Amino acid sequence: MSKSVLLLPGDGIGPEIVAEAEKVLHKVNEKFGLGLKFDSALVGGAAIDDSGVPLPEETLSKARDADAILLGAVGGPKWDALEMALRPEKGLLGLRSNLALFANLRPAILYPQLASASSLKPEVVSGLDIMIVRELTGGIYFGQPRGVRELENGERQGYNTYVYTESEIRRIGRVAFEAAQQRNKKLCSVDKANVLEVTVLWREIMEDLAKEYPDVELSHMYVDNAAMQLVRAPKQFDVIVTGNMFGDILSDEAAMLTGSIGMLPSASLNADKQGMYEPCHGSAPDIAGQGIANPLATILSAAMMLRYSLQAEEAAQAIEAAVSKVLDQGLRTADIMSEGHTRVSTLEMGEAVLAAL
Amino acid sequence: MSKSVLLLPGDGIGPEIVAEAEKVLHKVNEKFGLGLKFDSALVGGAAIDDSGVPLPEETLSKARDADAILLGAVGGPKWDALEMALRPEKGLLGLRSNLALFANLRPAILYPQLASASSLKPEVVSGLDIMIVRELTGGIYFGQPRGVRELENGERQGYNTYVYTESEIRRIGRVAFEAAQQRNKKLCSVDKANVLEVTVLWREIMEDLAKEYPDVELSHMYVDNAAMQLVRAPKQFDVIVTGNMFGDILSDEAAMLTGSIGMLPSASLNADKQGMYEPCHGSAPDIAGQGIANPLATILSAAMMLRYSLQAEEAAQAIEAAVSKVLDQGLRTADIMSEGHTRVSTLEMGEAVLAAL
Ligand SMILES: CC(C)[C@H](C(=O)O)[C@@H](O)C(=O)O
Ligand SMILES: CC(C)[C@H](C(=O)O)[C@@H](O)C(=O)O
Repeated sequence: MSKSVLLLPGDGIGPEIVAEAEKVLHKVNEKFGLGLKFDSALVGGAAIDDSGVPLPEETLSKARDADAILLGAVGGPKWDALEMALRPEKGLLGLRSNLALFANLRPAILYPQLASASSLKPEVVSGLDIMIVRELTGGIYFGQPRGVRELENGERQGYNTYVYTESEIRRIGRVAFEAAQQRNKKLCSVDKANVLEVTVLWREIMEDLAKEYPDVELSHMYVDNAAMQLVRAPKQFDVIVTGNMFGDILSDEAAMLTGSIGMLPSASLNADKQGMYEPCHGSAPDIAGQGIANPLATILSAAMMLRYSLQAEEAAQAIEAAVSKVLDQGLRTADIMSEGHTRVSTLEMGEAVLAAL
Repeated sequence: MSKSVLLLPGDGIGPEIVAEAEKVLHKVNEKFGLGLKFDSALVGGAAIDDSGVPLPEETLSKARDADAILLGAVGGPKWDALEMALRPEKGLLGLRSNLALFANLRPAILYPQLASASSLKPEVVSGLDIMIVRELTGGIYFGQPRGVRELENGERQGYNTYVYTESEIRRIGRVAFEAAQQRNKKLCSVDKANVLEVTVLWREIMEDLAKEYPDVELSHMYVDNAAMQLVRAPKQFDVIVTGNMFGDILSDEAAMLTGSIGMLPSASLNADKQGMYEPCHGSAPDIAGQGIANPLATILSAAMMLRYSLQAEEAAQAIEAAVSKVLDQGLRTADIMSEGHTRVSTLEMGEAVLAAL
């Protein structure tokens, strides 16, 4: 039975990096006889330019039908002046929400070959391997009511709503406890339970769940402290679970600890393990079209896709080994370049991974 | 005309560190003939233990009457099980809100003597000097409605409200633009304007204000990117302005970049420049009562208090010079200790600053 993959290149460097990942996917498809079928569609700014909306019906319907989705990135200054509902980001948020992709897995791993790229001291980050589990379809990102209203005194007030229900917390909690079980069995739940009521409920549900996972050691940390501890001693963490907004902030902070955000993949899964896979980095409009972007985070996202949504573990491992090999060969795109290595373009990096396969 | 200072030791290490700052204040009071009068009161867990509430009427009324307030820290596991309204943190939040202390100034400065304490590479942080201006009496910390409700299907939902009015944004914006004018004239406003409506209004008002401060270069950054950039290249920042929640997270992250959060003071000011001053660090219940806490952040907070609320610049500078001197002498509390230096207690550090005055 063939499986289908939807490619959503998006904006900025998206098309360039997805093109390389696509080649890699074709190659493993052939090599491992996976029987994958590919399709592509527009999302974000590219879709706005084409049809005026960031998430066209056609794209959404293809996404629903796909077994897995590989996304590049969305957004850019070109569309910054548009009203909120018509911005590229709404394409991404619409996909997450319509496909109920509530579980966002964001690993922050330091590649030993790239240790020197980190702005932190080597002893603080060497061997770093954290998994951040971010809730992706709830919280203040989607809470209603929201908007800008006029008060009686004539001035405007902006408002957003931060909400979580028990069941939303419980389902992301389960994903995190299970991830911890597969790893070092330590889970840190991040909240602001000393100030925000939503997160008091969050903490209570996490405590409750802990009883079902006695092999996992659960701890709690306030978000301000977590932001500090990630800088001070990131290796204290194994799995971190948190809500949408805190997860956005902390996962980017954690990714940057490695110094090579151009290397980090992510997965967004729903209850059926259907998933959307994308690099942790953004659309980098400043370097788009120059052929210098790092395609490895997208290629590694394709590997994650093979593992989690397409039951092709062998192919996933082959890609990961190939990426490790090109790093060993000293090949580096501009973002991870350092002395003594060979600087390559997006295309050259993609070709090198293909050759290593 | 004599000025009055209210001391609020609070919880955990609060009483120990405030005691040292108090001695320093007495000394400069005498030396510079400042005519300061001192009083003290209970807040946080200490007040709960005494009278059942975190912010007793008497404390609030003394606080209103004081020209300036020096706070230690509040909170600890002892009071963690209490309901939200009766927790120590509500004492602190109540003071901020009742005294309208909307402008929180949090410097993140790397002391050259302590450069090695940072977990970041020396070249990334040497000379670091950022000022974070955090809005302190609005946003999701105080937004209504808030709580936990039962939905029709019987499950509970936690909710909080993130709100800012134009005038709240404008007044904190002015503080930040003015701070930038006194410094390197660069202001970065942090928001999440690609997702949250409140922060679209925030960005608009900042843009609007910029016209009145043509000498200041205003930029905008999404909060996730700011969390990354602080790790990657913190020296790109001069002044950062942001809301209450983002400010909580980013100021702690920035403080930790210096590796010595035990050194960092903060000021919370209202429109009349009445202020509450406190160290950036918390109540550290794990080391309370051991006499090993670092009193320097509190002593430096006292210096900030002399400068901003008590018009005693000379005394402020004398304290700052004395702190620099004890660091030069190689004296270090446990949190900033490193090889080749002399480890001292809270009391010894306080005495050394007194001697250096
Ligand atoms: C583009 C933006 C809406 C998005 C988010 O905030 O979720 C991005 O920052 C991310 O983390 O995937
Ligand atoms: C204790 C807590 C309520 C407080 C806050 O979140 O504002 C603290 O973290 C701070 O930053 O001063």
